Amino acid sequence: MTWPHQGEQKRDNMDSKAIGIFDSGVGGLTVLNEILKVLPHEHTAYLGDTARIPYGTKSPVTVTRYARQITSFLVKHDIKLLVVACNTASAVSLGVLKSEFSIPIVGVIEPGARRAATVTKNGRVGVIGTEATIRSEAYVKAINGIDPNIAVITRACPLFVPLAEEGWVDNEVAVLTARTYLKGFRKAEVDTMVLGCTHYPLLSGIISEVMGEGVTLVDSGQETARTIAETLRSLGILRASTERGEHRYYVTDVPDDFTKVASRFLDDALEDVQQVRLQDDRIRE
Amino acid sequence: MTWPHQGEQKRDNMDSKAIGIFDSGVGGLTVLNEILKVLPHEHTAYLGDTARIPYGTKSPVTVTRYARQITSFLVKHDIKLLVVACNTASAVSLGVLKSEFSIPIVGVIEPGARRAATVTKNGRVGVIGTEATIRSEAYVKAINGIDPNIAVITRACPLFVPLAEEGWVDNEVAVLTARTYLKGFRKAEVDTMVLGCTHYPLLSGIISEVMGEGVTLVDSGQETARTIAETLRSLGILRASTERGEHRYYVTDVPDDFTKVASRFLDDALEDVQQVRLQDDRIRE
Repeated sequence: MTWPHQGEQKRDNMDSKAIGIFDSGVGGLTVLNEILKVLPHEHTAYLGDTARIPYGTKSPVTVTRYARQITSFLVKHDIKLLVVACNTASAVSLGVLKSEFSIPIVGVIEPGARRAATVTKNGRVGVIGTEATIRSEAYVKAINGIDPNIAVITRACPLFVPLAEEGWVDNEVAVLTARTYLKGFRKAEVDTMVLGCTHYPLLSGIISEVMGEGVTLVDSGQETARTIAETLRSLGILRASTERGEHRYYVTDVPDDFTKVASRFLDDALEDVQQVRLQDDRIRE
Repeated sequence: MTWPHQGEQKRDNMDSKAIGIFDSGVGGLTVLNEILKVLPHEHTAYLGDTARIPYGTKSPVTVTRYARQITSFLVKHDIKLLVVACNTASAVSLGVLKSEFSIPIVGVIEPGARRAATVTKNGRVGVIGTEATIRSEAYVKAINGIDPNIAVITRACPLFVPLAEEGWVDNEVAVLTARTYLKGFRKAEVDTMVLGCTHYPLLSGIISEVMGEGVTLVDSGQETARTIAETLRSLGILRASTERGEHRYYVTDVPDDFTKVASRFLDDALEDVQQVRLQDDRIRE
């Protein structure tokens, strides 16, 4: 038996490492789902920060602190690339994470922005998301970075997340809420609407209905999965094996609800869900 | 100058200590408001755990961990009595806190239950609250502990908190949501409805409208304030001074939003709001 050269060995080890993905909760599973379609042979490690969900109502400083802790955790658990599947964390923390960690990191804002810029015909794009995402103007900057002539109209829709979690995705309350939030976008005559939060694809039926036929909904998931595949390919660290990848799940609160709600987001059943014990976050002045 | 006897000194020190109050966020300010009415001379120290809000969707284990950390913090900051103003934390953590800390601790469930049992005439009481509060059955046990013949009907209303936080307390969406959640209570012909979450008093207008005239809404705040006054009196530690008390506020996320939203809950303006830095809650397996 001969050992491969050190370089080869390193590459071999690297390619079999997992893709790390995190979100404040289950929402990022919509992104994982797209990754599994494009990259079925990759191992994945998903962390949902269910003990501190949601991120969208919290400050950038606090969200960045959480994102940094989770990235450290996943890096220690042998990942080759990190996906920040949460729009809020991507919007407010991606720069910090990229500067502090040496692995490749992919957020969901850039891919979503790229897709929107490609899709729009009339140059009028709407973006909906959490308070924190909209306040950060991350989508406006990303879309106008691609094409400064595109008009970007934004609005925070804080009730969409609890509606999706309650499973009220097509009842009267959902319709009325969508009408209230989306009125301005119809007036602004956008032809493209970015679903800037991983929960929103669950409400796409109602959003589509309210916005009308001429409007294309953009979900970052697909484009993000494509970006990940390209990044792994260009770094030469796509998994060589043709066996189906293995999927680990970590949560910070007890797994019960996560596993239950996850079925709404993920096509496959969850295999291995593990609660991550947090060290006591002692409070001090 | 003469020093008081040690006993007197101890009592003097004790009476001038603050009443500690905590909640997952701003909601507990409705309870603080009632305390200030009954006990205007008391000092208070309020902690809102805004970096980890909400509690109502999280597991008892996680909520208890948070409650324990906050109680330690407030005890270190010289309080003479602790008020668990959060219904969820009262429902799932009060027993643990009472067994682990030696100061008197008052929750909001028992006072609310007592009030409901006094108010109902037909012996049919409704209770609404968060998922965690309703799942714990704390109100059912407390009300039936007072009078086992009272029929207690419960339902979790997860959208009420985000509605209140969005400020949608009397629009069409709020009405429709209230109608959907409260339908069963009207059928059950309850004559008393416990608002089992500190956010719900903000929606009392709409809840009242949907439930109709014959139904009395019970908000734990008033009864809790009365319980606190009685406890301090019976322990001989009411503040002796007739000067207006001082009020400190601690939050775990940045204070901006807290201070803004607090005005909807509190009659007085906030004086002293301070962010409490959390020690990094490192994640480990």
